[in-house]
This record gives sequence, C-alpha cells and structure tokens, in this order.
Amino acid sequence: MQNGAQALIRTLVNAGVRVCFTNPGTSEMHFVAALDSAPEMRAVLCLFEGVATGAADGYARMAEMPAATLLHLGCGLGNGLANLHNARKGKVPVVNIVGDHATYHVKYDAQLQSDIETVARNVSPGFVRTSQTTEQLCRDAVEAVKVARSRPGQVATLILPADVSWGQGGVAEPAPAIAPPAAADDTTVQAVAAAIKAGGRSAVLLGGMALHEAALLAAARVAASANVKIYAETFPTRMQRGAGLPTVDRIAYLAEMASIQLKEIDTLILVDAKAPVSFFAYPGKKSYLPHDGCNVLTLSTPAQDAAGSLTKLAVALGAERSTPALAQASRPGRPRGKKLTAEKVCKAVGHLLPDNAILVDEAISSGLMLSKFTSGAPRHDLITLTGGAIGQGLPNAIGAAIACPDRPVLALIGDGSSMYTIQSLWTIAREQLNVTAVIFNNASYSVLNVELERVGADEIGPKARAQLDLHGPVLKFAQIADGMGVRSTRATTPDEFTTALERALATPGPHLIEAVVPPALTGLKLKLLPHLLGSLDRMPLSVARMLKRKIAP
Amino acid sequence: MQNGAQALIRTLVNAGVRVCFTNPGTSEMHFVAALDSAPEMRAVLCLFEGVATGAADGYARMAEMPAATLLHLGCGLGNGLANLHNARKGKVPVVNIVGDHATYHVKYDAQLQSDIETVARNVSPGFVRTSQTTEQLCRDAVEAVKVARSRPGQVATLILPADVSWGQGGVAEPAPAIAPPAAADDTTVQAVAAAIKAGGRSAVLLGGMALHEAALLAAARVAASANVKIYAETFPTRMQRGAGLPTVDRIAYLAEMASIQLKEIDTLILVDAKAPVSFFAYPGKKSYLPHDGCNVLTLSTPAQDAAGSLTKLAVALGAERSTPALAQASRPGRPRGKKLTAEKVCKAVGHLLPDNAILVDEAISSGLMLSKFTSGAPRHDLITLTGGAIGQGLPNAIGAAIACPDRPVLALIGDGSSMYTIQSLWTIAREQLNVTAVIFNNASYSVLNVELERVGADEIGPKARAQLDLHGPVLKFAQIADGMGVRSTRATTPDEFTTALERALATPGPHLIEAVVPPALTGLKLKLLPHLLGSLDRMPLSVARMLKRKIAP
Repeated sequence: MQNGAQALIRTLVNAGVRVCFTNPGTSEMHFVAALDSAPEMRAVLCLFEGVATGAADGYARMAEMPAATLLHLGCGLGNGLANLHNARKGKVPVVNIVGDHATYHVKYDAQLQSDIETVARNVSPGFVRTSQTTEQLCRDAVEAVKVARSRPGQVATLILPADVSWGQGGVAEPAPAIAPPAAADDTTVQAVAAAIKAGGRSAVLLGGMALHEAALLAAARVAASANVKIYAETFPTRMQRGAGLPTVDRIAYLAEMASIQLKEIDTLILVDAKAPVSFFAYPGKKSYLPHDGCNVLTLSTPAQDAAGSLTKLAVALGAERSTPALAQASRPGRPRGKKLTAEKVCKAVGHLLPDNAILVDEAISSGLMLSKFTSGAPRHDLITLTGGAIGQGLPNAIGAAIACPDRPVLALIGDGSSMYTIQSLWTIAREQLNVTAVIFNNASYSVLNVELERVGADEIGPKARAQLDLHGPVLKFAQIADGMGVRSTRATTPDEFTTALERALATPGPHLIEAVVPPALTGLKLKLLPHLLGSLDRMPLSVARMLKRKIAP
Repeated sequence: MQNGAQALIRTLVNAGVRVCFTNPGTSEMHFVAALDSAPEMRAVLCLFEGVATGAADGYARMAEMPAATLLHLGCGLGNGLANLHNARKGKVPVVNIVGDHATYHVKYDAQLQSDIETVARNVSPGFVRTSQTTEQLCRDAVEAVKVARSRPGQVATLILPADVSWGQGGVAEPAPAIAPPAAADDTTVQAVAAAIKAGGRSAVLLGGMALHEAALLAAARVAASANVKIYAETFPTRMQRGAGLPTVDRIAYLAEMASIQLKEIDTLILVDAKAPVSFFAYPGKKSYLPHDGCNVLTLSTPAQDAAGSLTKLAVALGAERSTPALAQASRPGRPRGKKLTAEKVCKAVGHLLPDNAILVDEAISSGLMLSKFTSGAPRHDLITLTGGAIGQGLPNAIGAAIACPDRPVLALIGDGSSMYTIQSLWTIAREQLNVTAVIFNNASYSVLNVELERVGADEIGPKARAQLDLHGPVLKFAQIADGMGVRSTRATTPDEFTTALERALATPGPHLIEAVVPPALTGLKLKLLPHLLGSLDRMPLSVARMLKRKIAP
C-alpha cells in the first residue's frame, strides 16, 4: 500500500525521470520521506529554487530526458521561474512537482497560500494541473511527463496538494507511450529543395535538436553540394561542435551584426528554429531581421525530426553522398602577456579544452571570442543562455555534470550573471561535481553599458552609470566560493589563469577560477561601437565580414 | 519635453515614492537614464531581484510609504515574486515597475518574451497594468501608487514597455488623493463592547497596523479595564515593542501551541487581523484554530483605522482613562558558558539591543527565545516573515536601514533562509547601511526536521534526511560576507558572540556575525516534540502554560 508521494515517485522513475532537484518545505515532506522508497531516484538538494530549475534544464539538455524539480508552493515556483523560462525557450523538458497546501486547507488563506497555477502558466503553457485526489495523481504525473518529453520539449508543472501526497491508495503508472517525431513530409522537402535549386543565396538556420551531430552532418552535406550556408540560432540549447564536426556560425546577438549575416541570404530555411528577431527593440530599428526580399521557408518545426528532415533534403538534392566540410583540429596558443583580458581567458579555454567537454557559456560580453577560439578544439557540447534570463550557467553546469558524470564541465560565467544563482556553488561542492566555473570579474554589468548606448539614451548621468557598475565593493568570488566549499583561485595574469585552468582540468571535482579582467568593451571601443554598428550596413561587405569575425559571438 | 521614463519618475516622486530598488536590463535603460533627472529619487542597485523586492517591502514597513522596484520583464518579476508575496501577505505597499519589450516587438516572441501580467497577478491582485502609450503612462502610475498606498497596503505592478518609456510627450501627474482610513462604525463598536461586557474570556487579536504604538496603547487600555487579553498575529508586519509599550504575546507558530492559547478564549476580537489558522495542514489536525465555541468578531478590517477603532472601543467600555500595563525595562544578563546556542544568541541580543533599534527576525527555529529575551529591552520595531517565503530578512534589513538611516538594524537570520537572498550583503556594503546581520549557522533546515516529524511521515531514510541537512560542505558565512564586502566575525562561544555584537553595535555600518550553533531542537527534544505537542491539550493548563513560555515565539 503506497501513499500518493511514493506512487508518484515510482511513476516518475517508470517514465524515465531519475533525478529530482529539490528545495522542499513542509508541504513537500511526504514527497521527501518517499524518496527513500525509490533507489533509482537521485535527490539533489539546492539552496535556492533557481538552482534547482536551472539544474533540471541543464540535465535534460544533456540527458535528453527530463529531471524533476521539487518546489515549495507558489513562492518556490516563483524563485525557479527565470530558469524555467530559459528551459521553455530552449524547448527543454522539465517536470516540476510543486507542493501545495492540503486541498481542504486552501480556503483558510494561510501565509503561503497563493495562486500557483497562474504563475505556472508563464512557463508551462502545455501542462499545469493541480492533482485533486491520490487516485488521480499518477495519471496526472504520467501525462505531465508525456507533455514534457514530446517534441518540442516543454516544462510541465504538476501541483501536488499535501493531502494528495500523504493520502493512501496511490497506484504507480507505467511509462507513457511517446511517439517519435516525424520528419518533414515529401511536399515540404521538395518545395525547399526546389527553392535551393532555383539559385540565389540560401541558408539553413538550425536550432534546437538540429544542432546535434546527425542533423549537423546532414546539413553540412546539403551545404557541400548546393550553394547553401549553415547558420545556428543565436543561443543554442545544445550545440555539438569542435574538430570533426561542421563549423557553424551563430546568428549574431547584435541585430546590426545579424543583419549583415542575413543580408546575403535570399532564401532562409528554418530547421527547428524561428526567423531571427532582435533580442530587444531599439528606437528606430527593425525587430524582424531577415531583409524584405528574403524568402523564409520552414523545413521542419520543433515538433518534427530535424535530422530526418535534413537527411530527406540531402537526398532530394542528391547530396546524400557528398562530403561535408568538417572543422580541422586546431587550438590557439597559450595566451601571453602581463594583463589578463576576457579574450585571453577565451584563448586559454581554446588552448586547453579537454576532449568531450561540456562548455556552458554565460560569459555575456566577456565571451565574445569564445566561439572563435574553440571552433577547432576537441569535440564538445556548447550550452547557452536560451531565454535571456541570466543566472542560468552555474545551475546548468550542475545538471550537465549529473547527466554526464564522465565528462568535464567548464562553465564560463559573467560576474553579474553569476550572482543570481551563486548558491549553485554549494550544490557543486556537495555533489562533488566535475565542474570548473570561471567567473569573469569585470566589476560591471558590462553588456548594459553597450545597451545603454544602443537604446539611444542620451545624457547618461552618474546615477544611471551606478546601476551598471559593480564596484564598491568589488565582489571577491574566490572567497565566496571558498565559503560555499568550492576550491578557488584568483587569476590576474594570463599565466596565472592558464595554470589554474590546467590544474583544475587535471583534477576532477569542483573548482572556481576568478578571472579578474577589464570589461570586454571599454573606453574607445565602447564609444565607437554604436557608430560602427550603425554604419556597418553601408560598409563594403569585406570590411563588415572582418568586423563580424572580430566581434560576432 | 520629457520622455515617458522621465515623466514617470517625476510622477512617482510627486506621489511620495523616493527610493527605487533596481535590477535593470536593456528594456529598462531609458528608466535608468532618467534617474538622474530626479534628484529626489534614490536608486539602490541590487544583484538579484528578490533583494530589490524584499528591500522595498522592508522600506515601506518602516517609512509607511512605498518604494518602487525596477525589474527586468517577466523573469525579473519572477525572481522578485517570493518577497512580493511576503509584502502582499503583510499588507505592505510596493510599486513595481516592470520593464517590457516595446509594444510592437511583443509579436516576435523574442527570447525574454513572457506573459508578465499572469505572473504579476499572483502578488498584485489589485493593480496590474501594461501602459500602452507614453501619454497614458503617468495616469497609470498615479493609480498604481494610489492602490498601493490605500489601506490595506498592496503590491501594485506597472508594466512599462520600452517604447512607452522612451516615447516623447510624457506628462507628470500630481500626487494622488488618498482618503484616510475610517474607524469602525458605532454599531460595530457597540456590538464588540457588548460582547466583552457580557462576560466570558475575551481577547483582541491585533495584526497589521494595530501593532503600532497608538493602537497598542488603546488595546492595552481596553485590556486594563475589562477582562480582555491581547494577542498579536503570529508574524507581524511591524510590531512596536519593548520597555514602555504593552507586552503582547504572539499567537504561536505551532498550531498545537496556538490551540492552547485560544482554548481560554470565548470571544476573539479581530483588529486588522484574521482568525488564526494553521500555517500548514497536518494529517488529522484542524486547520482553523479557534475552538468550536469561540465567538469571532471583527472590530476593524485591514481597510480601516485600527488605532481609531480601538480608541472608540476603549471609550465604549469606559476604559479611555484606564492605565495600560506597560513592559518594564529589563534585560537578560550576558550569556555565559562555553558553548554557543541559539538561545544564548537571543539572550545576548536582549542584553545589548540598542534603543530604537529595528529588529528583523527570520531566525526560524533559532529565534524561539527571542521574544522572551527582548520583551523588556528598549523600545524597538520588530519585523517578521509575513508570508512564509524565506529569504526576506536580509532584504528587509536593507529597506529598513534606508527608511530609517538614524536607527540601527539588527537582522537575525537562519542559515537556510539567508542563502535565498545572500546577495543582499553586497547592497548592504555598497550603501554602507547600518545593518548587523547575525546568521545562525546550525547547518540544517532545522525547522523541517520538526515538520518532518509533525506531518507524520514515518520511516525517514537517509535520502530524506539529506534534503534537510546543510552539512557537507558547511557554509562559511564569514567568508561569504567578506567576499561581498561586509566585515564579518565567526563566533563559537557566548563570549565571542557577545563581544562581536557589542563591537558591531558600537560601530555604525555593515557587520555580519556568523553564530555557530547547534539546531535549536535536537536529539531528545526533537524526538519528544511531536509527542509533547500531541498531548498538550490533555495536559493541565499550568503545565501547558509553562511549556508555552518555554517554546512559544
């Protein structure tokens, strides 16, 4: 005889959910007590809910199976919302278990009472349900997992009232049947092939699952046989790259740069991606980035099989035996000089990145040169900030390390970003995860200095500047990390940094390296940027390309 | 000629909003740029939105005027939700300014796009609005402030699209007219007076604004002349107390204890309070705590004037000239012995609490003895966890210190609680606030060990225990604080702690003291607790009272 919580956990395990990232309170105590009834379910305690949700996101990106979260009522869900937003935008499956008051307690409007369902809808449009009885609970749970695991992946939120959890008579359900995604139909494939054959400059834009190896190789075969360029979406959920895989440029974050990339494209073919739009709106600038004459076609949607669709396209183009262009192995040299910069940190990463690493990039402005320096590094997976809600990188690293215990995880994080979920360090230490976190300490919300210029705000005064400035006091990340149990080093020269990174990568387990750097875009460069960007589309393409190589992500 | 953001800030200033707690992103850059146009508006940068919202909450509790927050789209609001929940439950006015994409950009579903209004409704039932034009903006803003400032105080959320912010033609509005709250009408007052005069055991239960001096004194006059006991709600928003003010017991957190308090009450009179309910539901236990025969009457609602209503009641009872019982000045001695305990920390606080201090209590299980040891301390304000969403204390301390720069703020925080908004320490350092934070480091979610027993979860295994255990690694708060720029001390003996507290209170500015203590309820005490509590209402009242004195908050 099982109670609801025990049957629920068994149902989750049956459905392939093997990790639960927890931050429980009283209303979740029966779920907590039930954890020991299922040896297959790993429970990972997080000290803040945003760590739990971001870890679940990172886990699923690598495991291709959802993790569960365990959150405490509406406030716990609220704290986890930003990273669930990132998961939603990345089409990543997550199953939230949100504890609630007992059904009969709701009417008393106790302190923690709030409307959980409205909050959940922000991130779980496809599945939000409050289980009303212990008998119904496992059927709800299996449906939640089914919604999460179907393509595109989704965040599903199951709200678990305490009495439904503690009630007797829970009956575990078997795994849900999940239909594999279908490839694009022949008509669509033929139409896309015809558009490519018609001539003009074409590009495929790969997103989501289309950035995994099989789809990348199929896209590269298409590119090799026809006049087709390959782009990746700006912020990939998970992109496989490095030596032996196709080199794929990402659409630039700065709309001005993206417009240059798209200027050359007459036919843009979407594969598990959407047509590029500006990250933010700017006065007098376009939001939608393909040019007016660009023909935008969809080969396959996020609900479909990207690799299968691209393979069919390759066949339709007679490209199935063409030889894809693959990145050659090449690494930058060891960075030299006296002064550490963000660029030199990225160079050291390219110099040392181990085989089969997982690279988490939330370096924001400090990561501008990362793609360039790692394009010929050994094969690795790149995880990026899919929803723009900073504070994702460290939690993602937790999840990735738990999904792939045999692979090193290297997380590059901006100082501003790191502070949203700095509590991650404790879980990294507690679980002794093989994560090396690099924090770029430039003592500013550096990218916002650029944005402040870009939005055309004039007369920028001291109070405004102070909102972007993290001086006074400058954060000491090495100390913060030590306080949470992670071994740490502070590096101020290229040699110190490179040596610290070598040592961290040679010793599995948690490490933090604080890289003290100037903002990546400072002084003259910062002042010039808006002007440069504004004039880019009037430049000769060769100059624009050079600049693009220099500053595109 | 003003843009929307400039006119909005001017409108906020006109309406009495003088501080903005910020965590901006690109969509808020025009608001940030406009800050320098209004010297009256102080801008306080926070590194996490939960710090900003909790600071706004703490500010308004003390200033009795709302602060603004500046948050970045739905994700920023999500991160701030837990402390806005605490503000909502505490009936505290807060005005959120949530930046959004430009109105015309929304349809492109860019990375940070989400449904902000649904999230906002969770905490702002009374006012959520997305301003659609620059012309309308300031009228919306003045209405938001009006809703926030009217009784009961509310959280109002104004969503500010980027183009509404940067658009020209903003026109600042004057301050809203806000009607003062009315006292209870004569009929109600007479009915309550008649119930008291009818005999039996009566109590007034004071909440919200009824815990400020004028209302407390009126309630104490009523108590002195009739057979009326005074209780305070379990988690006061702001309670004035100490020598020279009436001593008021709070209704206990543990429902079992609260039932004992309420057992003696035949008539319960609510003043800006609701009838006590259990914080959580427990299997087989009641949620609603007044006994079946208790007559519950409302003297005044949160929309009414508590002090005026109690004064009318005193007059109706002929008690207006009676002498209220006031707490005598008395302090506990300096704590002695070798081992530091949570009780000794509370004793040291009572021993040293300065005159006119603001005491923020989020010590959870470690604060059990705080009320007892500070009841005769010099007059102070007590701020507590109104909504049960932990992570409120440090942000509240920021807001209280900014509202009352001449008063020392002492924040007592559990280790688990502190980690939700540990980023607060940076803002405390940056603004050089006169805040002494005491973190009780007992390396556990101690209260959850109690709750795990209370919910009747049996067979508690190692995985379950691990979810409540903060060992491995033990957090080192002194180092974390140093890393964020706050001077810190680690205390392991009563003398070390008391000396550190003396020093901190003698030196205005930021301090953190890490108090290394065992869980307040351990070993035998913990094992006995559920049995004790279960048998309390079968005990002789004298024994129950003794126990109540020992463990009630």
